[in-house]
Amino acid sequence: MVELILIGIGTGSPDHLTLQATAEIAAADLILIPLKGADKSDLAGLRRNICAAHAGPQARIAEFDLPRRDARDTDYRHGVDRWHDAIADSWEATIRAHLPGLSGRVALLVWGDPSLYDSSLRIARRLSARLPLRLRVIPGITAIQALCAAHAIPLNAIAAPVLITTGRQLRDHGWPPGADRIVVMLDGDSSFQALDPQGVTIWWGAFLAMPEQILRHGPLAATGPEIVAARASARAAHGWIMDIYLLERG
Amino acid sequence: MVELILIGIGTGSPDHLTLQATAEIAAADLILIPLKGADKSDLAGLRRNICAAHAGPQARIAEFDLPRRDARDTDYRHGVDRWHDAIADSWEATIRAHLPGLSGRVALLVWGDPSLYDSSLRIARRLSARLPLRLRVIPGITAIQALCAAHAIPLNAIAAPVLITTGRQLRDHGWPPGADRIVVMLDGDSSFQALDPQGVTIWWGAFLAMPEQILRHGPLAATGPEIVAARASARAAHGWIMDIYLLERG
Repeated sequence: MVELILIGIGTGSPDHLTLQATAEIAAADLILIPLKGADKSDLAGLRRNICAAHAGPQARIAEFDLPRRDARDTDYRHGVDRWHDAIADSWEATIRAHLPGLSGRVALLVWGDPSLYDSSLRIARRLSARLPLRLRVIPGITAIQALCAAHAIPLNAIAAPVLITTGRQLRDHGWPPGADRIVVMLDGDSSFQALDPQGVTIWWGAFLAMPEQILRHGPLAATGPEIVAARASARAAHGWIMDIYLLERG
Repeated sequence: MVELILIGIGTGSPDHLTLQATAEIAAADLILIPLKGADKSDLAGLRRNICAAHAGPQARIAEFDLPRRDARDTDYRHGVDRWHDAIADSWEATIRAHLPGLSGRVALLVWGDPSLYDSSLRIARRLSARLPLRLRVIPGITAIQALCAAHAIPLNAIAAPVLITTGRQLRDHGWPPGADRIVVMLDGDSSFQALDPQGVTIWWGAFLAMPEQILRHGPLAATGPEIVAARASARAAHGWIMDIYLLERG
């Protein structure tokens, strides 16, 4: 039996690891480090440092390139499904190569938390149809909490709801119904530019909890263009960027 | 200058602490443990254990009773404002008693994460008008992540939004617009009972990450009554309960 443990590692600081996460890393027989895009540089370094600090002497550490999603597939859901199939193939091949007896603890280090806009749980479900697998999840600090902590602000207004959504949703559908505070993730296009900024406040953060962290907040009308400019120059300087923001209206 | 550090401690397991949180606890000169309701028994014990494991030799540990909200105040927001004023009074008195020079690091251990349905940030703002104060926030694992980890499920459907809301909102306004997945917190009344259960799935958890953890999931029509019964008997057995659930429709 393979025990697969999806471990949330937080959003950039090695000190975001929980005591539970460090114990699981220390006990792992095999640690998977899938590499993609930005992971190939700074983020892979973070994961290697985490392994160096916490992995046990028994651990094998396997880095492997993740397949890329076929952006030419015009059916988004179909493209994502095929992509997850391909990732499951690469997990399976790596586990079979390093744990030929298919017995032991396999840890996968997941950016943020495995529950939030992450595909690892869906890929693990595919894998469980192919291998004898027991799945466990170790929660990690999300970018949402890192954003609020960095700005020292609450996520919610008193007793009020908050919507977590994506840049695409905001761009395609405007301000969503049901909440006066929204957190926007997976936004490569600063989609807040599609909103009427009147009466809207933004709290934005990039490279949260990392030495490169950048924060901006203020009225969207004035602060939005500053963020677009700061984001473009930081992205050019680093070659990649991860950011998130909270919007409040009224 | 008083440095006030709000430290998220997660939802019940002492191993939810991050490395950052343990380092801040170790460096604190004064650790505040406000007690209220359930805190007086099991939860106070958890915080005492955390202090015993991580506080430095210089640390003073101050437990104090929190004032209660005046439930007779019919204006909810006014009642909450007065309550937060009274809590700020008790923080201030405790800090002045234990740090008479008003200099040093004061840590406050916050259940879950300080950004999510927690009043500590609002009380800290009041305090900063009364004392020379520098405020920092250390993020912690929320009940939302603990729920998803325990069930090994994603919070969101692929690329779709999720609404975080309260039991009162659900009871008063029904299923909110804008999301097919909602997380319900602060619900002492199992408010899912107010919904038409047809086509709705629930994932529920109580005492998450604690030895007493209880999980249920399934179609709301069949699982809802089971949860109401399990919740009542667990509450009777322990004298208190903390729970949370995720609902999906369609």
